[in-house]
Amino acid sequence: MTTQQLYEQIKRKKSFLCIGLDVDLDKIPQHLLATEDPIFEFNKAIIDATHDVCVSYKPNTAFYEAYGLKGWQSLEKTIRYINEKYPEIFTIADAKRGDIGNTSSMYAKAFFEDLQFDSVTVAPYMGRDSVEPFLQYKDKFTILLALTSNDSSSEFQLLKTDHDELYKEVLRKSKTWKNSNQLMYVVGATRAEYFREIRKIVPDSFLLVPGVGAQGGSLIDVCKYGLNKKVGLLINSSRGILYASDKEDFAEKARFEALKLQREMQIIYEKL
Amino acid sequence: MTTQQLYEQIKRKKSFLCIGLDVDLDKIPQHLLATEDPIFEFNKAIIDATHDVCVSYKPNTAFYEAYGLKGWQSLEKTIRYINEKYPEIFTIADAKRGDIGNTSSMYAKAFFEDLQFDSVTVAPYMGRDSVEPFLQYKDKFTILLALTSNDSSSEFQLLKTDHDELYKEVLRKSKTWKNSNQLMYVVGATRAEYFREIRKIVPDSFLLVPGVGAQGGSLIDVCKYGLNKKVGLLINSSRGILYASDKEDFAEKARFEALKLQREMQIIYEKL
Repeated sequence: MTTQQLYEQIKRKKSFLCIGLDVDLDKIPQHLLATEDPIFEFNKAIIDATHDVCVSYKPNTAFYEAYGLKGWQSLEKTIRYINEKYPEIFTIADAKRGDIGNTSSMYAKAFFEDLQFDSVTVAPYMGRDSVEPFLQYKDKFTILLALTSNDSSSEFQLLKTDHDELYKEVLRKSKTWKNSNQLMYVVGATRAEYFREIRKIVPDSFLLVPGVGAQGGSLIDVCKYGLNKKVGLLINSSRGILYASDKEDFAEKARFEALKLQREMQIIYEKL
Repeated sequence: MTTQQLYEQIKRKKSFLCIGLDVDLDKIPQHLLATEDPIFEFNKAIIDATHDVCVSYKPNTAFYEAYGLKGWQSLEKTIRYINEKYPEIFTIADAKRGDIGNTSSMYAKAFFEDLQFDSVTVAPYMGRDSVEPFLQYKDKFTILLALTSNDSSSEFQLLKTDHDELYKEVLRKSKTWKNSNQLMYVVGATRAEYFREIRKIVPDSFLLVPGVGAQGGSLIDVCKYGLNKKVGLLINSSRGILYASDKEDFAEKARFEALKLQREMQIIYEKL
């Protein structure tokens, strides 16, 4: 997928919503537990109910790995289902990987070739040569952690370095990497005031924004400082949508929550 | 496992060698490709041939994920084989994970409960609350990336912050985290001169040291500055051992290479 295709989808759906598929067997409706693959059945129902109001799905790989081989199988089935049935959707493997060059190449192979995701999240600590193997893939995107939404993100990300805070150094240096036009960035919604600074460094990049909803971030504040001419934001919501109901009506309720967010986005979008 | 048990094993074997099980189907002996699970067959042969001269095995998860479901299955079989047949071995999931709290909990569950590894490598960029869920597990260890062995590690890890270089801030702050006595650290052998500085901050911790051999690090230099009273080092070698031969004698040749390293370690150990 290209960013232009992603933008076209956003325009068509008037939505820049990403739904995080972080499936926890303790939280899904009990009746699904009797099926052969409860995680996949849950995802399938959520996807069928929301694909027209969101532009992206983001399975967090941890939630699948936690269930071992069966979990990995559910992840494979989920991504294949999306790619076959809704090929316009932008898929994100939220894996936060990053390792030395030959290892990062293996991760890139896993997520881009084997699982056919459009993008993967990557941690910056090991620098350029840990990220460039992902950037080699044409029309695939690498979403680098910049400023995350958790409480302790400030512990290192906001440390002042010789030049600037660490997260800004990450943004700046990443722009010098090979194929850096295929970078996007994770910026938590819980730090809306930082979007202004971030947009000075990466005005045109897409930002993946977790932390709206359960974690307390505000959609309006994020949009105020984060939107660019081609929208440039993917706002993620996970728990608020997935677990809107733990009854048989879970998919319908999930759609209702997704639709509420889409409507808010539409209002904001139409003012652009 | 406790660090005391690890130390006892090191004393008994006169070895602090960790073997990295980074299995690449393009590099293993061709005759194994005809078996049902070539990755597991390869690992099994390597493990049987080397378990008495090393103290730890470290599968890098990327190399398994790259082969999808089958790869994950090979990883499960490998860790179960080690745990059943050689329970004294200290096992490391080289996964370099790290995410917000509830996600890190899922990773901890995956590696400590489901797969029963003794330890897992974790990236520090997201700070304390991304690591503490791993540290909750008694007698399990979290190996934090401090100073890695790749070329571009200097890009961020050596950035000067208000106080000190970033990797030193990571070491210092991590000591304030809950259950920090269950931390170990990744320090690349390619930066032997830094071990002196690192030992001032974490004198007693175990350091996992990649980069000896193929990546150019020197065992003697690392030991000179890195050893402590209870050894405190796990020296990793992967490619130099695994791919010593691509013929039917691969396990024998792997043992020979592992034994060479163990003998060097024994000489150093006996001088302690």
